[in-house]
Amino acid sequence: MFKSLERRSGLLCVFSFLAFLSFATASGAQSAASLDLMPLPAHAVTGTGQLAIEGGFSVALTGYTEPRLIAAKERFLATLGRETGIPFQNGAADKATLTIQTAGASEAVQQLGEDESYRLEITPSGAQLTAKNPLGVLHGLQTFLQLVHITPSGFAVPAMTIDDQPRFPWRGLMIDSGRHFMPVDMIERNLDGMEAVKLNVFHWHLSEDQGFRVESKIYPLLQEKGSNGQYYTQTQVREVVQYARDRGIRVVPEFDVPCHTTAWFAGYPELASGKGPYKVETRWGVMDPAMDPTRESTYRFLDRFIGEMTTLFPDAYFHIGGDECDGKEWDANQAIDAFKKAHGLKDNAALQSYFTARVQKLVAGHHKIMEGWDEVLEPDTPRDVVIQSWRGPKALAAAARQGNRGLLSTGYYIDLNQSAAEHYLADPMEGDAASLTPEEKARILGGEATMWSEFVTPENVDSRIWPRTAAIAERLWSPQDVRDVASMYARLAVVSQKLQYYGLEHLSSTELMLERMTGDLDPKAMRILAAAVQPPMGYEREELRHYDATSALNRLVDAVPPESEAARKFGEAAKAVADGGASAEERREVRHWLVLWRENDAKLEPQLGKSELTVELAPVSQTLAQVATFGLEALEDLENHRVLDAGIAQRELAILKQAEKPQAVLRDMVVAPVEVLVQAASAH
Amino acid sequence: MFKSLERRSGLLCVFSFLAFLSFATASGAQSAASLDLMPLPAHAVTGTGQLAIEGGFSVALTGYTEPRLIAAKERFLATLGRETGIPFQNGAADKATLTIQTAGASEAVQQLGEDESYRLEITPSGAQLTAKNPLGVLHGLQTFLQLVHITPSGFAVPAMTIDDQPRFPWRGLMIDSGRHFMPVDMIERNLDGMEAVKLNVFHWHLSEDQGFRVESKIYPLLQEKGSNGQYYTQTQVREVVQYARDRGIRVVPEFDVPCHTTAWFAGYPELASGKGPYKVETRWGVMDPAMDPTRESTYRFLDRFIGEMTTLFPDAYFHIGGDECDGKEWDANQAIDAFKKAHGLKDNAALQSYFTARVQKLVAGHHKIMEGWDEVLEPDTPRDVVIQSWRGPKALAAAARQGNRGLLSTGYYIDLNQSAAEHYLADPMEGDAASLTPEEKARILGGEATMWSEFVTPENVDSRIWPRTAAIAERLWSPQDVRDVASMYARLAVVSQKLQYYGLEHLSSTELMLERMTGDLDPKAMRILAAAVQPPMGYEREELRHYDATSALNRLVDAVPPESEAARKFGEAAKAVADGGASAEERREVRHWLVLWRENDAKLEPQLGKSELTVELAPVSQTLAQVATFGLEALEDLENHRVLDAGIAQRELAILKQAEKPQAVLRDMVVAPVEVLVQAASAH
Repeated sequence: MFKSLERRSGLLCVFSFLAFLSFATASGAQSAASLDLMPLPAHAVTGTGQLAIEGGFSVALTGYTEPRLIAAKERFLATLGRETGIPFQNGAADKATLTIQTAGASEAVQQLGEDESYRLEITPSGAQLTAKNPLGVLHGLQTFLQLVHITPSGFAVPAMTIDDQPRFPWRGLMIDSGRHFMPVDMIERNLDGMEAVKLNVFHWHLSEDQGFRVESKIYPLLQEKGSNGQYYTQTQVREVVQYARDRGIRVVPEFDVPCHTTAWFAGYPELASGKGPYKVETRWGVMDPAMDPTRESTYRFLDRFIGEMTTLFPDAYFHIGGDECDGKEWDANQAIDAFKKAHGLKDNAALQSYFTARVQKLVAGHHKIMEGWDEVLEPDTPRDVVIQSWRGPKALAAAARQGNRGLLSTGYYIDLNQSAAEHYLADPMEGDAASLTPEEKARILGGEATMWSEFVTPENVDSRIWPRTAAIAERLWSPQDVRDVASMYARLAVVSQKLQYYGLEHLSSTELMLERMTGDLDPKAMRILAAAVQPPMGYEREELRHYDATSALNRLVDAVPPESEAARKFGEAAKAVADGGASAEERREVRHWLVLWRENDAKLEPQLGKSELTVELAPVSQTLAQVATFGLEALEDLENHRVLDAGIAQRELAILKQAEKPQAVLRDMVVAPVEVLVQAASAH
Repeated sequence: MFKSLERRSGLLCVFSFLAFLSFATASGAQSAASLDLMPLPAHAVTGTGQLAIEGGFSVALTGYTEPRLIAAKERFLATLGRETGIPFQNGAADKATLTIQTAGASEAVQQLGEDESYRLEITPSGAQLTAKNPLGVLHGLQTFLQLVHITPSGFAVPAMTIDDQPRFPWRGLMIDSGRHFMPVDMIERNLDGMEAVKLNVFHWHLSEDQGFRVESKIYPLLQEKGSNGQYYTQTQVREVVQYARDRGIRVVPEFDVPCHTTAWFAGYPELASGKGPYKVETRWGVMDPAMDPTRESTYRFLDRFIGEMTTLFPDAYFHIGGDECDGKEWDANQAIDAFKKAHGLKDNAALQSYFTARVQKLVAGHHKIMEGWDEVLEPDTPRDVVIQSWRGPKALAAAARQGNRGLLSTGYYIDLNQSAAEHYLADPMEGDAASLTPEEKARILGGEATMWSEFVTPENVDSRIWPRTAAIAERLWSPQDVRDVASMYARLAVVSQKLQYYGLEHLSSTELMLERMTGDLDPKAMRILAAAVQPPMGYEREELRHYDATSALNRLVDAVPPESEAARKFGEAAKAVADGGASAEERREVRHWLVLWRENDAKLEPQLGKSELTVELAPVSQTLAQVATFGLEALEDLENHRVLDAGIAQRELAILKQAEKPQAVLRDMVVAPVEVLVQAASAH
């Protein structure tokens, strides 16, 4: 499970660590809080005893230092203060509790592949964090914060030695500020969350059909006509870049061209292939507008624009998008058609390829390395272009074979409401990538979680990113064979709780939204319903109801997290009951939940009519009661060793099949576990 | 209940309004959400129908305008967006839903007694807000936001006409940034809360024995030696002053002299009456260090210092503190003794009076009006000096009789953990003030809630200020005869919920602190205990345990709010049961809570030993179970018309008497209601 880096004695500790983790899984996360790390380190040796975290706790910086390290120390003490409620003084102490030894500087602009390793040694008398450069220090401090837990003798970290380094050099989170604008405070608190789980690339998706989000001084109509007043000033961009750098995070901007560009055309219609007029798009989906790749003026505009943006974003990489061109505006434009013929461009893919090659030269001219989505890859794409794959491992492996570097986003689309487990088990080195040569494998840089924003607002977006992105962070940091799902969920719950100390609102937003929906100050029955449902998965939501950029996202589907913790635990316990291997505690829990759900409708139903936002939930609540009733009957049969009549089972399963269908844009997560119970009861 | 300002028809609406409110009280706050205003307006006429709040909602500014009004409009739309989850565009509309008509400007620097009135007319087709100046507009917008509630047809405000104006011109909140430093974001979110309930003075207590909190460029050692690095830069002060002005709030700074000044002396010991050396105080209480009132250099220093501070704080008033001098340093200093004799100053009070008079001249020289605590009042105190009374209504009335203006803080000490009802019923015009002449009464300017910060940190301070300060705000704004406690509590719960949309953390902080204390991600049993206890009242906490500025405030006493909503409701229902007038619902509730409390200890007890922060709660939890057991037995007797044996009752009451005593610095709020039940059962 852990890379044994240095010596055989590592093997021993691996086993003790594993034993500890399974203990954690069996008896609740907090029992083994001391090792509730996420991502798990590459190598850890547990020691004896613990280091107390008390009021006199102090930190000393030794060796190389710089303002970022001083800021990191202060931030560390502030976070530790929030974690413990202890006021720490940032003063000098005779003997520091935690000594940080930094060998030297990191690059002036953080580079892909820079050393991020650190060593953290904790004994009952003190702790030592050593790293080659500030990046390792930042990671080590976050590990320390995760180790803090309450004990009978106060807050403490366990004695241990950790040697840690990431598996992949590119561990990203993309946030789409185009479709729903995300204010700077949302970006910054999520950068704090990224630091907490050792992600190191913030991919900032800054332009879309629905909004152009950065101030351009050269082309001010971009934001003036393209953003409805919702954009980042250049000062704010610089602040975010600095904020990220302070946390060991690169910022890669994305300006998506030649499509997803309607908002550009609101101010500069001459860039477009169509006649216009254009205004900022409010619908979701793939739109027709596309830049005109045949006119030299388009490239002159892009050259100056990229030049301006590269002064704002110091990172070596520059993302030009390139995804989802439907080609309709190109087909409808005779001049473009003529151009294609004159240049031997046989189809729109070839035309886009021509465009991409031109843009790549502009990007390179500004000393940046181009990045793009799958579509930018062509046989003659320069070897330094980085491919971000949304099409999947096959496309990623193809890029690597061709000599291009790439990163995986398939499997990490956190807007699609998949489970943490599904994201966790998606590995950049699986599928086609597994059969690559070592040289080709080295071209797979890592991956990125992508927070597309059709269905999130600044209010609920944290709950879509966290805690699931922490599981993706572990996938990208920890050794490949760290993939125990039960351990992941146990530790995820702990890291999720701790992320609140970083200001993230993923746990608090649900309650406030339920109160608002119901107009009820203590919406007990609604909370119970909320814990049983989830938003639709994949792209089903758009099929169930019409949404656009003006839609209010204030209903139950927006309030509940993408993955119900209660339903997941219920499902596990129900499965154990069905298998006949359930503990008494599990049987009690299954019964407890089923009774709660069966009886909830009678309490909730009379309230639902009071609010336009809840009236549609009546059938959802009713179905839940019906499903729970079947579940309870099946449970009784199983406990009393009675066999459920096959005909009844059949009828119930038919009704349950119906109940699987979303109602009020919500999935009932209790249905599948109850189906398992009914099947078990009838097969008994 | 409401001032009938204009016409007799007002009388009719008063009655309908009252009927509505009592309905609200009887059936839960949300039923009458439409009139859940706090403070209640001076005059309101309910209309027919409601105005829908939908995506197309828009606001137009007409008449006089200024940047503050444009900012207020944007802020209003943002808050409305958080309240409803609806994205509002800040664009122009053909016909605005809400039209704001402002007659003219307010003063360049907000003045005491400026017109704050507004008129808000809402019909199903639109709303009109009119005011003489921006101050009235700000208040009217907050009233509108409070009127928003969810209905079966969506969010709406009820049709009505409100004519509103404050009872007192000085409605303040004091925050003590000296004892525990409060970061700018805490100050700003509380200014938002103040605006929401129409408070108009932020009294900023900026220096204490434990910390000097403002950057001085003339005397930089004040913050360098006196703040442990925790102070406001001048830029931040200007930002806060502007932030407050944007919200119709004056900022009155307080620099407390000649005592409470240890932190000044850390950098400038020559100001002190003692020999020093001085360092920032960490103990709580009244300290000996005092400025030397006999040396001219003291006044030269203060003159330059006040001059610098008056450039930062534009308000006409300047608070010099003046409270709690113990005189010990003066007594110990022979030169001071000689000075007193030479100048005929018979005691230390006379010496302080001499000092105050000198300082008053300095303040006046910088064109400011001096304010001070009770102690600064002497027979020859200039008539324009404003007295803030912590000694009580008698002192306040005495000041008014003498010709000085004053404001009440007695009764509004929100650090003392009194109930909202106690604060609510304290009226500046009661007691000695009631017998003042109209001219003298006019000198009573209002009052101020005071958030002294010995026992609060930025983490839990919101929960000490809110929601109780909203009840004080109503006392100071609404007509004197608005004093129905049941109505106040019903409306307070609603305003408390809404204050979350302003970023206040008063409701969310408890949960996070309970999780931290227990190391439990879902501390169910701890929540149940937490709902039954309160912090000690008054100054009892300091008698129960030693605290100083380095103490961690991270235990149950710090996590629970000052007033338990559950215990208060339980107490009301228990009283109804004892009186024999309880509804079936109330009887059910009393039983429900008692059973929960009786059974909680068995669940909680095994967990308490896991954390140093909870181990001391074992007897608290045990006592709660014992008390609940007595309560349940008494309830059974009452319900079965059995008389509880007098001897048993006596023994139980003796045990309950013991249980009244704080344990682990916590009061068990269930004891008193159970005593009522036991007494009723034995007297039955």
